[in-house]
Amino acid sequence: MRILGVDPGLTRCGVGVVDVDTRRTAEFVAVSVVRSAIDLPLEARLLTVRNQLAELIDEWNPDVIAVERVFAQHNVRSVMGTAQVAGIVLLLAAERGISVAMHTPSEVKAAVTGYGKADKAQVTLMVTKLLKLDAPPKPADAADALALAVCHAWRGSAAVTSTVETPAQRAWREAERARRS
Amino acid sequence: MRILGVDPGLTRCGVGVVDVDTRRTAEFVAVSVVRSAIDLPLEARLLTVRNQLAELIDEWNPDVIAVERVFAQHNVRSVMGTAQVAGIVLLLAAERGISVAMHTPSEVKAAVTGYGKADKAQVTLMVTKLLKLDAPPKPADAADALALAVCHAWRGSAAVTSTVETPAQRAWREAERARRS
Repeated sequence: MRILGVDPGLTRCGVGVVDVDTRRTAEFVAVSVVRSAIDLPLEARLLTVRNQLAELIDEWNPDVIAVERVFAQHNVRSVMGTAQVAGIVLLLAAERGISVAMHTPSEVKAAVTGYGKADKAQVTLMVTKLLKLDAPPKPADAADALALAVCHAWRGSAAVTSTVETPAQRAWREAERARRS
Repeated sequence: MRILGVDPGLTRCGVGVVDVDTRRTAEFVAVSVVRSAIDLPLEARLLTVRNQLAELIDEWNPDVIAVERVFAQHNVRSVMGTAQVAGIVLLLAAERGISVAMHTPSEVKAAVTGYGKADKAQVTLMVTKLLKLDAPPKPADAADALALAVCHAWRGSAAVTSTVETPAQRAWREAERARRS
């Protein structure tokens, strides 16, 4: 199974691809960072990010796209662009009929380091080790995208929204429902 | 000039279209509400909203798309979906080369009622009057989308991001830049 992990962002968006075998060993395939110029209008930035992401998805043809779940509580200033890029990734997956999984930052950190509050350096170190890379992936967004893919490889298909919901996904959906009623 | 206003939302997304003449009189053209089923996976909801919005944009062929600017501070539970739909609207505009404008909720309220903290009933009442509608547009999302289009008709092209920035847009861009450095 091929997993494409995305650490969404408007200025830098990490994309990491791993293959996972039946014993859940994750093998490095590719890593990339999609960027958009900060002085472009927002709509142009979203379009350039979308086009680059579409190209990478079509190039690597993953079975699952794993996206970091964005919370409004963190980084209020940048969260809107991040949420919009995450939405675009979900849209690209839905257009192509590719399954989608969302993992929280703490799920990703816990999966690769054993500790949900691990720092970026720890995550990068563990991704480098686990995927037997010659050098640490840079920038941190690239390492985060690979960590997300590894996290999904290990947590497995239980987190694919289209089939079974995780507790976090259920809470999210219930919050949506509560808002509506 | 034809303006298509969008009040972004995942469950209900208002779309209102007005034509504005050289004396800035706004004339009602159409209003619609795009919906997605709350029990669908998020990626499927985004896809269905995108497809419906694309159809409306292509049907009404606006010169400008005006979108409500979403802030992370409000309605933390629903803001992510709202931000994602707003991002999709921006993307649809950019794909088609249509100019984009963003107005804050208080700019919209101030434009149509004279008061930046007007409630939904006041906004609906004024939209009904200003556009000489036989009945108030329902639900509120429909009225808000028309209010947004009227707001843009009156504030004019100064708010189009692709040309000149509003102070709010400048603040947004500077916040992005500050985050990066």
